[in-house]
This record gives sequence, structure tokens and C-alpha cells, in this order.
Amino acid sequence: MSEPVIRFTRGVPPPETFPKERLAECACAVLEKYGDVVLQYGPSAGFTALRQWIAAESGVEESRTIIGQGSLHLQDMLARVLLEPGDVAYVEEPTYDRTVTLLRRSGARVVGFPLGAEGPDVEEMERRLKDGERPKLFYVIPDFQNPSGMVIPLETRRCIAELAREYDFWIIEDSPYRRLRYAGEDVPALFDLCPERTVRMSSFSKLISPGLRVGYAVLPAPLTKPLLKYAEDSYINPSYFNQAIVYEYIQRGYLDEALPFLKSLYAPRLQAALNALDREMDGLADWVRPQGGFFVSVVLRTAVDADSLLDAAAKAGLILSDGRGFYVERDGSRFIRLPFCALTVEEIELGIQRLAQVVRELTTETARR
Amino acid sequence: MSEPVIRFTRGVPPPETFPKERLAECACAVLEKYGDVVLQYGPSAGFTALRQWIAAESGVEESRTIIGQGSLHLQDMLARVLLEPGDVAYVEEPTYDRTVTLLRRSGARVVGFPLGAEGPDVEEMERRLKDGERPKLFYVIPDFQNPSGMVIPLETRRCIAELAREYDFWIIEDSPYRRLRYAGEDVPALFDLCPERTVRMSSFSKLISPGLRVGYAVLPAPLTKPLLKYAEDSYINPSYFNQAIVYEYIQRGYLDEALPFLKSLYAPRLQAALNALDREMDGLADWVRPQGGFFVSVVLRTAVDADSLLDAAAKAGLILSDGRGFYVERDGSRFIRLPFCALTVEEIELGIQRLAQVVRELTTETARR
Repeated sequence: MSEPVIRFTRGVPPPETFPKERLAECACAVLEKYGDVVLQYGPSAGFTALRQWIAAESGVEESRTIIGQGSLHLQDMLARVLLEPGDVAYVEEPTYDRTVTLLRRSGARVVGFPLGAEGPDVEEMERRLKDGERPKLFYVIPDFQNPSGMVIPLETRRCIAELAREYDFWIIEDSPYRRLRYAGEDVPALFDLCPERTVRMSSFSKLISPGLRVGYAVLPAPLTKPLLKYAEDSYINPSYFNQAIVYEYIQRGYLDEALPFLKSLYAPRLQAALNALDREMDGLADWVRPQGGFFVSVVLRTAVDADSLLDAAAKAGLILSDGRGFYVERDGSRFIRLPFCALTVEEIELGIQRLAQVVRELTTETARR
Repeated sequence: MSEPVIRFTRGVPPPETFPKERLAECACAVLEKYGDVVLQYGPSAGFTALRQWIAAESGVEESRTIIGQGSLHLQDMLARVLLEPGDVAYVEEPTYDRTVTLLRRSGARVVGFPLGAEGPDVEEMERRLKDGERPKLFYVIPDFQNPSGMVIPLETRRCIAELAREYDFWIIEDSPYRRLRYAGEDVPALFDLCPERTVRMSSFSKLISPGLRVGYAVLPAPLTKPLLKYAEDSYINPSYFNQAIVYEYIQRGYLDEALPFLKSLYAPRLQAALNALDREMDGLADWVRPQGGFFVSVVLRTAVDADSLLDAAAKAGLILSDGRGFYVERDGSRFIRLPFCALTVEEIELGIQRLAQVVRELTTETARR
């Protein structure tokens, strides 16, 4: 294995982004100001001041917000509340693997819509809906998707919103990367296009720290009561302490200061990844060109055996995630996720060089057989 | 309504026990020492050093421990892992209402065993087991039970352990109050008597602060993998930050210092409750005399209408929990939980005075009809 080993695996923020001193300062302030509240039991919805901030940001009432131990956990509870065994759940394909696990754990039959240049295949979706399929929800990551990096164009978002209205399903809009845009303009959120059918989910994991476990959801009114009840039954309440720290961090202006810092750290890494792909992978694969987030992804032009690819990459000092893990019905062997956020420019270049080398060798070998 | 209103409702620690300054100190130390670990994603089992402390305390390997967002949430996940719809779960009766909700949510048929002077009715339990009933688990709070305050005597614990071994069910031993003993000697835990079939659950909610949401379980080896997987699928990992703060608090000797302080605060409150019961409720009710924990409870000698009791109490400035909520099959109308921990001696005396008055009036009225 070549040194250094390059890990294109999990999309986690690098430790140099963790604002340790500022969080310590906020933790102390929180215990002094809100100690009696954050150290006691409380309602399941979360720390009031942070709920108010989230509500104001989305222009809704505080009562429609819930803060939990990371947004994945809120998704889990939402799946439990919304899905009966046998219900259909729509997702993009590829999509975030952990959510698929949770949807299936709640008994859902998960149907994937392939991502193309225009986002998920909404024509296929409409066909299935017209044929009578009745999904309970569509789980979608419209901004800088994990794992593909893709942003869904406005036109497709409009179609999704229309279909949700017409066929009465919930849109679960997971957008933890939305505020990490390095260039270009925001596309209106599904929540903006169809607030009455959309659950907006996000978290502070990518903006402050994943370890604080502070994720949230903004819910259509009919979903709030059942979700809050489910949460209370499950764990009484989440840690207000962590939520109050996030609130204090925002109040002190630290989040506003952190955003340009994070963008200035990640933007050159994204650019390095795209440049390296242009240089190394031309003709070998296709890829999207995200303007933000944590991920670039490539789809190989030639079929390869996924296990051989992972093995050969590991031998070349390159650890990849199994592309098939992000697919639900179709084969993901040719899909490779490249999380660039926690790697230096040099590591990204070296990694993509190795990737190109491995792919070239494998496809030559395949052609030879 | 008489002033001040006395609330004999939730068993929560009073805010004067929250060690705000010490927690602030620990939070800062944790961010400095373990910042990169506690602010990042990690394995679902929890912060390693605290797992090691828990493991050492129970004399097991670290791999058999899990720390989560409060022990209730671990119970929820355990129920999901252990129970299929239709499975039987045994509980004491009365028992902790939130756990019953979770067991039922996982599809369990919950069977209660009435608490008497010797603890839950293990003869009845044995009869049912001999008749062929096969429970998956027995959820039990052997030390200073919520809601009754009862401690299960050693002989009954031995029977439970034997039955668990013979009939192959799991014992879920929930013991958050065990370390809050104000007099007398510890009774061996079910975990000590039957480690291979017992899940030991506890938390720091009653020893440091509920708001930190740090609960844990020590598991029989076969349960660890499925529970850790379930936890990872649900929320990736809990907040290591809070867990590291607890660890630091213990390391600095603060927990050892807090215990005598907590006992010296709660013991006179327990005594005041027992004295007031002796003085006011003689002939009206029966009660246990706990040597620790948060709860005393009484069982009225005469049947009353529970709603009338709650209403009359409220009118007299006394807020009670509905005793029926702690029962699963039998009628809990005559059961009254009296959490004394968060009330002053004066409030306890006044509350029990009012209770006696209300009960006396109601039973006279009932007799008159």
C-alpha cells in the first residue's frame, strides 16, 4: 500500500474546523445563564431559544420545530411515525445509505429514482404515480447531495413539489450542506416551493461540529404532534445543553464568522478535486461539478467489478466507499463517492491520481479478458 | 386552591443539586483534552473512557457497555431489538409508566406482577411460566422503585434470577436510584445474581443532572452487537461531549463528593415524608418505608374514584400523578406516588397533610353514599 493512505470514505468535517475555544466559552455561558433549564428534564421538542431561531429562519411558528440528537435520528422517528410495513418510500438513486436502512427498518419498500443531469427522474416518478403507486414520502437531498454532490435544478424541484401536492406524499428535504455553497446562487428549497408537504431537515454537524449531535426538523403542522409524542416516549427530551451551546454560538456571531472560514477551507479542496478529475479521469468517467458541499462523485464509463475496484484501490493506498451501498434497486458498481472536505489539496490530487491509475488498469484488464 | 401549591408529580432532582460551576469546569477541560474526539462522529457505543469506567464498576469488558441519550432510550432500542409483535414482556405492577409505553410500542403484550411486601409476586410468575408462557424479558426496578419506592428483598431476587435462567428470559434491571441509599445495606443486584441474563441499566440523571442525557447499559455479550448496530443505524453516535463531561466529573472526584451531599439533602426529606405519613395517614393507607431513592408511595385502604381524588387534591392545592398510569392490568386507583426529592421538608409536610384531609373527606363521602 502506498503511503500516505488516502481515505475517500466518510464525509466528515476535518478537526481543524472544530471551534474548541469558542465552544468552551459558550458552554460556560450556557451553564451560567440557563443552567437550571439545560440541566433539568424538559419537553421533547428542544431548547426554546434555538427552536425560535430555527423557526424564524424558516418563517414558521416555533411549534413546528423539533431539535434532536442529529437529524438522522429525527428521520428515524419520522419514518416510525409515517410508515406502516409495506408502505412505499421514494428516494433518489444513489442516496444516503443510512436513511435507506432506517426506511427499510420501518417496513418501507424503498423505490429509487435515478439521478441524471436534471436530478431524480421525475418523469418515471410521475408514471409510477399515474399507475397508482402511492408513496408515503420522498426522501431527497436537493443541495450538494450525499453521495453524488448534485444540486437538483429548479425545474425538477417544481415538478417534485407538484407531484407531492397532487399525490399527497410528504417530501423529506434533508439539507445539511445547503449553507456550504462556494459559488453560484441558492436554488429555492423544496420547503419554499411546497411548505405544506415538506419536512425541512438540517443540522449543525457540518457547520459547527457533528459531535454536538444537534439536528433539527421544520414540520408541516399535522406532523408535529405525533413526532413530538414519539420523541417524548422514546427519550423524554434531548440534551438541551448542546442545543443551548449552539444557540449561544449563533448569538455571539460565531456561526456567521465560521461560514466564510469553512467556505474558504473547502472551496479550494473542491476545486482541486475537479481539476484533478479533469486532468486524470477524462474519458474514464463522468462527474457532476458541484458548487458546494462535501462531495464530488464519478460514474465510471466502463463496467468494473466493484470488489476488484475496492481491492485494487486499497492496494494502491486509496480507501473508497462501496458505491453499491448508495443504491437501492440498481447496480452502483460504477459509482464512486469522493468526499473532499477532510483532505488537503495534495491528498485529493494524489487520491484522484491513484484512482485514475486503478481504473485504467482494471478496465484494460477487463477489456483484455 | 391553597397556596403554595404542592406538586407530588415527577421524580426529578431539584435544581439546587445541579453542579453548574463544576460542569463548566469539566466542559472546558473536555474540549481542551478530548476536543477532536468529542466534536467528531464516533462509534455508537459511546465515549471510551466512560465506557471503561462503567465496565470496571460492573466487572465486565468494555465491549459489553453502551452509553446513550438517557437510559430510557436504551430501553427503547433494547425493546426494538428483543421484541417481536405479540411477544410477552413482564413488569412489576405498579411500574415505570414510560417503559410500559415503549414495550407496547414494540408490540409486546405486557404482563404485570403485583408488588407486595416481598416484591413482585414470583409465585404467580412461576405459575405462568410453568403453564407455558414464554416472556422475552422482565423489566424490573429492584432498588427504590419508581413509582413505589420499594426494594426487592434478596430472596425474591434469587427467585427471579432462577426463573430467568430456567425459562430463558432477559432481566432488564433498571437501577438509577441504587446509589442513593440513605440507610441500611445494599441488596445484591440482579446483575450480580444472574449476570448472564441481566441487562444492567443506570444513568447519571439522578447523580449529576438529567439534562446531560447520559444513561448506560451493561449487556450480556449476545445482546451487545445487535444493540450497537441498532444504535448506529438510528443516530450514528450519541454526544460524546456530554459523556466526556461526566467522565471528567468522576475523575475529578466530584461524583464521590456529590453523593454524600445528595444523601444529606434527600434523607431528611424522606424522613419527613415518612413521619408525616405516620402522623396523618394512619388507618387511611399502607405504605412502604424506603431507605433511599426519590419515592414513597401509599395504597389507600378504601376504594376511591381516582378522578375525584385528583380533582379534590388539586382543589386543595395538591397536584398528584394519576396512580392508574403506573398499572398495566390491575386498577391503580388507590395508588399514590409521592416523590419527595424536589420538595422541602415543609412542602412535604403540608402536602401529606392535605392528602390526608382529601382522602378523609372522600372516603367519608363514599361511605355516606
